[in-house]
Amino acid sequence: MVIKVGIIGSGFIAEHHCFAFSQIPGVKIIGISSLDQDSALKLIEKFNIAGPYFKDYHDLLSQVCDAISICLPNSLHHEVSLAALSQGKHIFIEKPLARNVAEGLEIVKAAQKAKKTIFYCENNIYAPSFVKAKELVDGGAIGKIYMGRGREHHSGPHSAWFYKQKLAGGGALIDLGIHDIACLVWYLNEDVEKVFCQTSIVSPDRGEFGQCEVEDNAMGILYFENGAQVSIEESWTAPSSFDVKIELYGTKGQIIVNPSHMAPLEVFSENGFGYAVEKASTTKGWTFPIPAESWTFGYPQEMQHFINCIVEERIPYTDGKFGLKILAIVEAMYKSTQSGKIEVVFYPKIE
Amino acid sequence: MVIKVGIIGSGFIAEHHCFAFSQIPGVKIIGISSLDQDSALKLIEKFNIAGPYFKDYHDLLSQVCDAISICLPNSLHHEVSLAALSQGKHIFIEKPLARNVAEGLEIVKAAQKAKKTIFYCENNIYAPSFVKAKELVDGGAIGKIYMGRGREHHSGPHSAWFYKQKLAGGGALIDLGIHDIACLVWYLNEDVEKVFCQTSIVSPDRGEFGQCEVEDNAMGILYFENGAQVSIEESWTAPSSFDVKIELYGTKGQIIVNPSHMAPLEVFSENGFGYAVEKASTTKGWTFPIPAESWTFGYPQEMQHFINCIVEERIPYTDGKFGLKILAIVEAMYKSTQSGKIEVVFYPKIE
Amino acid sequence: MVIKVGIIGSGFIAEHHCFAFSQIPGVKIIGISSLDQDSALKLIEKFNIAGPYFKDYHDLLSQVCDAISICLPNSLHHEVSLAALSQGKHIFIEKPLARNVAEGLEIVKAAQKAKKTIFYCENNIYAPSFVKAKELVDGGAIGKIYMGRGREHHSGPHSAWFYKQKLAGGGALIDLGIHDIACLVWYLNEDVEKVFCQTSIVSPDRGEFGQCEVEDNAMGILYFENGAQVSIEESWTAPSSFDVKIELYGTKGQIIVNPSHMAPLEVFSENGFGYAVEKASTTKGWTFPIPAESWTFGYPQEMQHFINCIVEERIPYTDGKFGLKILAIVEAMYKSTQSGKIEVVFYPKIE
Amino acid sequence: MVIKVGIIGSGFIAEHHCFAFSQIPGVKIIGISSLDQDSALKLIEKFNIAGPYFKDYHDLLSQVCDAISICLPNSLHHEVSLAALSQGKHIFIEKPLARNVAEGLEIVKAAQKAKKTIFYCENNIYAPSFVKAKELVDGGAIGKIYMGRGREHHSGPHSAWFYKQKLAGGGALIDLGIHDIACLVWYLNEDVEKVFCQTSIVSPDRGEFGQCEVEDNAMGILYFENGAQVSIEESWTAPSSFDVKIELYGTKGQIIVNPSHMAPLEVFSENGFGYAVEKASTTKGWTFPIPAESWTFGYPQEMQHFINCIVEERIPYTDGKFGLKILAIVEAMYKSTQSGKIEVVFYPKIE
Repeated sequence: MVIKVGIIGSGFIAEHHCFAFSQIPGVKIIGISSLDQDSALKLIEKFNIAGPYFKDYHDLLSQVCDAISICLPNSLHHEVSLAALSQGKHIFIEKPLARNVAEGLEIVKAAQKAKKTIFYCENNIYAPSFVKAKELVDGGAIGKIYMGRGREHHSGPHSAWFYKQKLAGGGALIDLGIHDIACLVWYLNEDVEKVFCQTSIVSPDRGEFGQCEVEDNAMGILYFENGAQVSIEESWTAPSSFDVKIELYGTKGQIIVNPSHMAPLEVFSENGFGYAVEKASTTKGWTFPIPAESWTFGYPQEMQHFINCIVEERIPYTDGKFGLKILAIVEAMYKSTQSGKIEVVFYPKIE
Repeated sequence: MVIKVGIIGSGFIAEHHCFAFSQIPGVKIIGISSLDQDSALKLIEKFNIAGPYFKDYHDLLSQVCDAISICLPNSLHHEVSLAALSQGKHIFIEKPLARNVAEGLEIVKAAQKAKKTIFYCENNIYAPSFVKAKELVDGGAIGKIYMGRGREHHSGPHSAWFYKQKLAGGGALIDLGIHDIACLVWYLNEDVEKVFCQTSIVSPDRGEFGQCEVEDNAMGILYFENGAQVSIEESWTAPSSFDVKIELYGTKGQIIVNPSHMAPLEVFSENGFGYAVEKASTTKGWTFPIPAESWTFGYPQEMQHFINCIVEERIPYTDGKFGLKILAIVEAMYKSTQSGKIEVVFYPKIE
Repeated sequence: MVIKVGIIGSGFIAEHHCFAFSQIPGVKIIGISSLDQDSALKLIEKFNIAGPYFKDYHDLLSQVCDAISICLPNSLHHEVSLAALSQGKHIFIEKPLARNVAEGLEIVKAAQKAKKTIFYCENNIYAPSFVKAKELVDGGAIGKIYMGRGREHHSGPHSAWFYKQKLAGGGALIDLGIHDIACLVWYLNEDVEKVFCQTSIVSPDRGEFGQCEVEDNAMGILYFENGAQVSIEESWTAPSSFDVKIELYGTKGQIIVNPSHMAPLEVFSENGFGYAVEKASTTKGWTFPIPAESWTFGYPQEMQHFINCIVEERIPYTDGKFGLKILAIVEAMYKSTQSGKIEVVFYPKIE
Repeated sequence: MVIKVGIIGSGFIAEHHCFAFSQIPGVKIIGISSLDQDSALKLIEKFNIAGPYFKDYHDLLSQVCDAISICLPNSLHHEVSLAALSQGKHIFIEKPLARNVAEGLEIVKAAQKAKKTIFYCENNIYAPSFVKAKELVDGGAIGKIYMGRGREHHSGPHSAWFYKQKLAGGGALIDLGIHDIACLVWYLNEDVEKVFCQTSIVSPDRGEFGQCEVEDNAMGILYFENGAQVSIEESWTAPSSFDVKIELYGTKGQIIVNPSHMAPLEVFSENGFGYAVEKASTTKGWTFPIPAESWTFGYPQEMQHFINCIVEERIPYTDGKFGLKILAIVEAMYKSTQSGKIEVVFYPKIE
């Protein structure tokens, strides 16, 4: 059985999807649609993709295929998701589901109406170190989690649209925080009842990407229904390199997960070398290169799970409803940044 | 020149003081006052202390000496400090300065009136790893700090009074948080303008120590005048062992300080051994024993600095005003736990 | 194209092979031969293997298939390899190639005669952290390697035959050292000219496995043609858990690889949990569980490479000649254990 | 009671001694003798030393004092020790005791005759992380040690004489290896029976210091009387920074000590900063700065112990006989580098 996938977009994350699909037997990429013909053609060549290039994504949607990968700026998630679902395609959609709950809710309802599945791309939930930690938590290794912390940081995204409110719907919180929130909800297996958050813009001038209109730093706290309080810290102004850390404190122990810095490999190099990890500012001196980066961060495992779900007609671990729930938490956090107080999370009703 | 010191109290921290003074040439302990005669006599024997035991602390205060170490429950800081200052003694007072700002302010004013110095015991500021980090920050190694985090945890204090509101004035926040807040203010060298905090009681039943009336967990955020936001996490419900971590994020780099877990020594022992670190729940399996624990956490260096200040008639790095400032931040955080919103810090006016 | 594989043996390493093959599309296991019917049937059930169970391995060899996995005690490598090759099958053979060079040479010559390939199973060379280190070395990150160290240890193997000279051909050196030697030869990309080694038996009584007749500890030094000296340490008497460390020192830097202890995950558990890593003596206290253990140590990647080589008719990175070269080094080291001096390595001539 | 000390030499290690003595109350430095007047005067000023500068060390020896610190190239240890002892002074002598056993034996005998004490400076034995490890070993935490490893490395010494056979008596082995050997003998509390060693010159051209005539790399193995085998690796050609590692493997556990790299402090700095640790090649990127470096490596604790021994008329942990024993092991290792085989250690007879 061959699963046919079309890809819309040709940037950083489209390349991750192409790589992941190329690792999975039984998947055929039937074509790429993008406004940027050059980068799309490069992906087609690099991953030896059978299907052609389409300028207009509607032309791709009119092809026979099972699913569409939506690798586009946040502002286009809503429009393109609705179009793909209305054509009877499953969708693979990168976090966040949309810019806000209102948009996200319409996407989820459209999927219900079309009887198609939203595969919500939250790679960390498929990363092996995170999965092992989840096994330990679920197996009772650390008792009941009452406190925790998530942190993601790097020096800032690699496309201009991330820095613009209208295109992205927010900054470091909706871009990085959404990862931590998803993982923390998954680990605690509880709903977030209330939130608190404040943000700031530390580095407003982003050179070639123009002005940073959105928060480049955010710090907040999630209050879970079981009483746990968990902090999140998100930053687009941290030199060194991409880093993701989770700490979980339970009544019987603790877990620290940090695949980007606690590495099986330490290197001191006077010469430097080609590549250590995403956004590494140098490879000279001491570094902690990540072996098999894409696999370490769960991209191919995520796509493998999604393809299995299509083949076996199962609901993925991370579906549209999950993506919408996380978005509702983010939206309440943005509200708290304005009010300066704890805000209750409102989860949209879905039948 | 010999500096004469009297000690009031004979518990855990009194032993730390006795040890530290015993390391410093030119210091003579002239006596110990305590309600608990047995433990006081043990200290006198263990550290070969010249001076006698006093039941009533007023009898100790009437002796000729330069300074008094106040190693008592928080609720007695106010009364005993005023008594010692009125007798013309300098005071060494363990954190927190008092149970609240009102008490603390009276202590500071009494010291001004008596023209005596309050030596505020915040050992972390004298710990070598923290000092080295401070050098790096002040030398510009990480640029301007815009985000950070402090965390202290262990499984709970070793005396019943810590768990009682009236005796302690609060729980994990005033006991552990006060360390982190002091260090963060020191590192950023900026005032905290606003705060946010929430607390919880995770483990209310404390066995021999009775009910835990105060928060055993606290999570809050400090907002500094320069715009930096820094989280603190404090817990009395974490198994493993005492742990203190500081992370500082600057525009040009980052620093992680963690003397209790990032150790020069890793041990796997099937047999276990005598002592790894304060409140270690086991010494079997992998542990990270702390070499020269008292020194690692800065106790003798702190006392050496204080004695030097007395000899040279200098103001210590951590004086009563500093202790009062930190207490004002804590008090605003307790206010925030009630209001559920950001609270402005009110610093008491002192000439 | 489907690659058909038969498996001889049903112990620890047979399970690794079955798992790896089950991960690779296009591989069909056509049957398992083993003297132990129970464990063979369990593997057939666990991995949903199509083919039947054979008591006599000759019956398996008479089936139509491309390759045979030889998962047997070292003493049977020679006989079974010759039989499989003579039936026109490729062979997958676990390290060591054989008990000694004489046996190994006959296997290599038999493969040449049969025009079949020996796939020599040295999983570390396919482990992602080791591969990343190799990229860095080859890219010049640390300059020329002039010194290094390999160490593997655990508390001892899980089958009685490992402890018997006749069945195993040696102890910790041929069992664990052979991994380190292979990786070090690979990293330095130089031949070993001379060696030195001494061994000992620290724990002769092995309970259910009887007497340990072979060395359970070995320490030696490899002298490479470029002048580099590299130590190896191998132990079957180390509690804690399986550990593999490589350190490489170059004129421009250094690399430390340690996938079994430098983990992306640290856990403190009072309760303990199911599984941390091979031969972990406890899961209580601090542990460093390995996410995706089989993948971390390179087993499925190794088999994927081998299957690719069969499909594409390529020579694997680790073929029979490589296995024989490593065995020649081991043999010289055993000679040194007797002579107490440096011994020259004699590499058998093969056309 | 004031202990009066004279110092001969004014280089790197003389500064360490001056610093250490300045930390110890009750020690008075009565003068410094050195051929290099400038650096001697700088020390006198920096450490506020009371005593004068002497060109000729005999003039210093004729002063009234208790002990002489010998901070000179190895080739002068013999002559100056004999002179100081004959004047009735105790001597503080940096490792190695002398260039070889013959010289060392004469020094020890001269001390016996003069009834004075040789204080052999092996700082690692006084370093807090090493001391803590010793406590654990002696307390049975890891059972009986059967294997181990010592490694010291940096990029090369800071004076020309180290690189010359006649002045130093050897290279990395006698300079760095002597530390590891001393610590390993101390940890195992057993005598070394036999040794093996090989050396090499990796970087012969040492710029301003001229040709490297001695080994800049050494790798050897110590065979203890209890059957333990312990490797040592020493290098003067490792970039990054000074690093010292000890690993001890026992029947019940293991210990890793690494105060120079396993630090309580991790820093990423784009700007760099003043000082991380001895011979750090950069402070940009990730570094592991050492807090309180001199204390971490045991220098002031060592001198404090020595002064205490003088005051209390005790034998130090590390006396001349200990230094001579370590030197005998080194000498056997040099013999092994020539013979290419295991050599028995001959310990000189002393009554």
